Amino acid sequence: MNLTLSRPSLISLAAGFTDPDTLPTTETASIVEELLGSGPEARAALQYGSTQGDPTLRKLTATELAVRDGVLRSGAAYHADQVIITNGSQQLLYLLVQVLCDPGDVVLVEDPTYFVFLGILEAHGVAACGVRLEHDGIDLGHLDRVLDRLCRTGQIRRLKLLYFVGYAHNPTGITWSFDKKVAVLGRLRDVERRAGHPIYVVEDAAYRDLMFSGVEPPSALVADRAHRRVIYAGTYSKPFATGMRVGFAILPEQITNPVLCLKGNHDFGTSNFIQQILVRAISSGVYAAHLEQLRVRYRHKARVMGSAIRQHFPHWVEVWEPTGGLYYWIRLPQCVRSGPDSTLFERALGANVLYVPGRFCYARDRARRPPDNELRLSFGNATESQIRTGVGRLGRVLHALTCTQRK
Amino acid sequence: MNLTLSRPSLISLAAGFTDPDTLPTTETASIVEELLGSGPEARAALQYGSTQGDPTLRKLTATELAVRDGVLRSGAAYHADQVIITNGSQQLLYLLVQVLCDPGDVVLVEDPTYFVFLGILEAHGVAACGVRLEHDGIDLGHLDRVLDRLCRTGQIRRLKLLYFVGYAHNPTGITWSFDKKVAVLGRLRDVERRAGHPIYVVEDAAYRDLMFSGVEPPSALVADRAHRRVIYAGTYSKPFATGMRVGFAILPEQITNPVLCLKGNHDFGTSNFIQQILVRAISSGVYAAHLEQLRVRYRHKARVMGSAIRQHFPHWVEVWEPTGGLYYWIRLPQCVRSGPDSTLFERALGANVLYVPGRFCYARDRARRPPDNELRLSFGNATESQIRTGVGRLGRVLHALTCTQRK
Repeated sequence: MNLTLSRPSLISLAAGFTDPDTLPTTETASIVEELLGSGPEARAALQYGSTQGDPTLRKLTATELAVRDGVLRSGAAYHADQVIITNGSQQLLYLLVQVLCDPGDVVLVEDPTYFVFLGILEAHGVAACGVRLEHDGIDLGHLDRVLDRLCRTGQIRRLKLLYFVGYAHNPTGITWSFDKKVAVLGRLRDVERRAGHPIYVVEDAAYRDLMFSGVEPPSALVADRAHRRVIYAGTYSKPFATGMRVGFAILPEQITNPVLCLKGNHDFGTSNFIQQILVRAISSGVYAAHLEQLRVRYRHKARVMGSAIRQHFPHWVEVWEPTGGLYYWIRLPQCVRSGPDSTLFERALGANVLYVPGRFCYARDRARRPPDNELRLSFGNATESQIRTGVGRLGRVLHALTCTQRK
Repeated sequence: MNLTLSRPSLISLAAGFTDPDTLPTTETASIVEELLGSGPEARAALQYGSTQGDPTLRKLTATELAVRDGVLRSGAAYHADQVIITNGSQQLLYLLVQVLCDPGDVVLVEDPTYFVFLGILEAHGVAACGVRLEHDGIDLGHLDRVLDRLCRTGQIRRLKLLYFVGYAHNPTGITWSFDKKVAVLGRLRDVERRAGHPIYVVEDAAYRDLMFSGVEPPSALVADRAHRRVIYAGTYSKPFATGMRVGFAILPEQITNPVLCLKGNHDFGTSNFIQQILVRAISSGVYAAHLEQLRVRYRHKARVMGSAIRQHFPHWVEVWEPTGGLYYWIRLPQCVRSGPDSTLFERALGANVLYVPGRFCYARDRARRPPDNELRLSFGNATESQIRTGVGRLGRVLHALTCTQRK
């Protein structure tokens, strides 16, 4: 970010910022005007809320999610008392690791995964263990081998949870199939006896509202009928306004209180004012209408980036077409390194274009050497023209690399 | 809170909520209208900010505090890069304990102190050790004896910080003299060699903006010329709008980065939108004008409660006149218990009036038995009429207690 600020000619395809043109300034202005124009409600919006979060926002969240998951009219519908409102989904992930893990514990993550979550694990002295990712979720065969190894070494007793990004995955753009969610829950249930404690599954659904198509598989909550193992983490920040910082979670009953107590210690509760803005955005339909616009916009920007990639990149790159979200995932031949100390990165910077080295998205897992031949390109924040120019620059750098220079 | 909601006739003099009539609904509405009406600035306000907080808000915070502390034109002025913006000062306190303390460490607190801070210490397995409070800060003689004891037992090697509420103290309403701040820093410096590490002083200034008189002693920062030991925690929530949840801190250079890294892990940064509202409130003078109104209002409500206490309470209660903030501190004779299991508490509840038992404000310190004959009464949230009625009810309950029933 500092680099971007100090070099105006640099095109950053790195940051996960959303498109400034999509930010709902007019909508928010009207909502706030209405909210603060109404006496008692206005005052209530500027007063403390509760640690768990506004009851109306929690109810709207539970209902909307039950609709999306197709369980609203069933006994499996979600309830406001299972919902907790957090400062972005980031805070929820932090609270969860603090509540569920001890130093020396093991957490399964996708290989590659959301790198910020790896930072949270590291900060808690928790070991991340990577499971290879395919285009519809993790490789179940690899999961079996990893679980076998953990059982053989006794490490299974330290396995506390599996974390995955279910929709329009960061960094790869894939979306998990529902079948794989079911399979993962089954595999983990099978080893629980060996573990001697519950093994939770955290589905990070930060990009669910940014899926390009309206069709999406149900969340892992649906595969967990007893609501005992799946934690669902969502957010209103990414889709509505990143400057607002409001996330939410649906939690199994037995961990709601521990998470809530910890949240109380952290900060008492998320800004009530912002929550009231969101309540009005959702219940008035402004939020849903905004999502529709967003989908159109990001789908379009993804197409712009996709065709620029096809036009400018060498034929030997492997391109992962995103199902939503903000990113393209590019895999280079193994001999081409992409890390921050590589020729590619250095030349890209020289050509004024910045990407996220794929290496950052891999856990420090001693069981394998992390790949160093991938990159994440974001079409979120850049303009269409910047996307075209940035991809063009990167394409020229890639073409110019001879095989010996690819180190 | 649940009790208050379910019994409308109950008058709560317990909660630390601010007066709903003081909440700046009109001011906030105009600020948001202006902020979101301005194209690029509007979009920037709804985009991610940085983990440390908005640079303009940090600069305004540093400057305003330097003015209040009388050091603006001196080499001791504060700088934006020392400031970090948090989700209320609560988050700062949590981050500090996480960064500076390990389980088994010792923290010195006032006896009595802000009970939420005690909860944070307990959650981290840190022992709180109480130092008696007088009307101008802690009892220095007692501090000496506590430090002696820690040195004798070797516990001094676990002493990491001293926490105090410098202005309009919660729960007692006292304000520390500057001399006591200087003395405390000196005493702690003297034992640092024995401790083998820095011992920090955390001044919680949450109620500084709610002081009744405009005259206030400088903060402990002024007594710490090298800016190496004092952490100053302030807030914009209490004085402006509790629903906003924005606090700040001035930190010594050597702990800014650790706190910042941890904050990055917790939540990436505080809502940028709210920070932009505060920037405009402060720089336009709206914030300062609001403080003036607040001072007048709470001073008046304190007078209302003070005269109700004089009118209705027995002569044998000891009343601590607040210098600001939201609370009266009442000390009863030692034979009258005030805890949640006492006759007094039960009868008060029967008479539909709720207070905070003083006992909650004392650390679990094995070196002494915590007093159980005090109570905190808040004039923050209740209306004038509720204050009069509530104090009247409590007065009748107190009068009716014979000495044997006072248990």
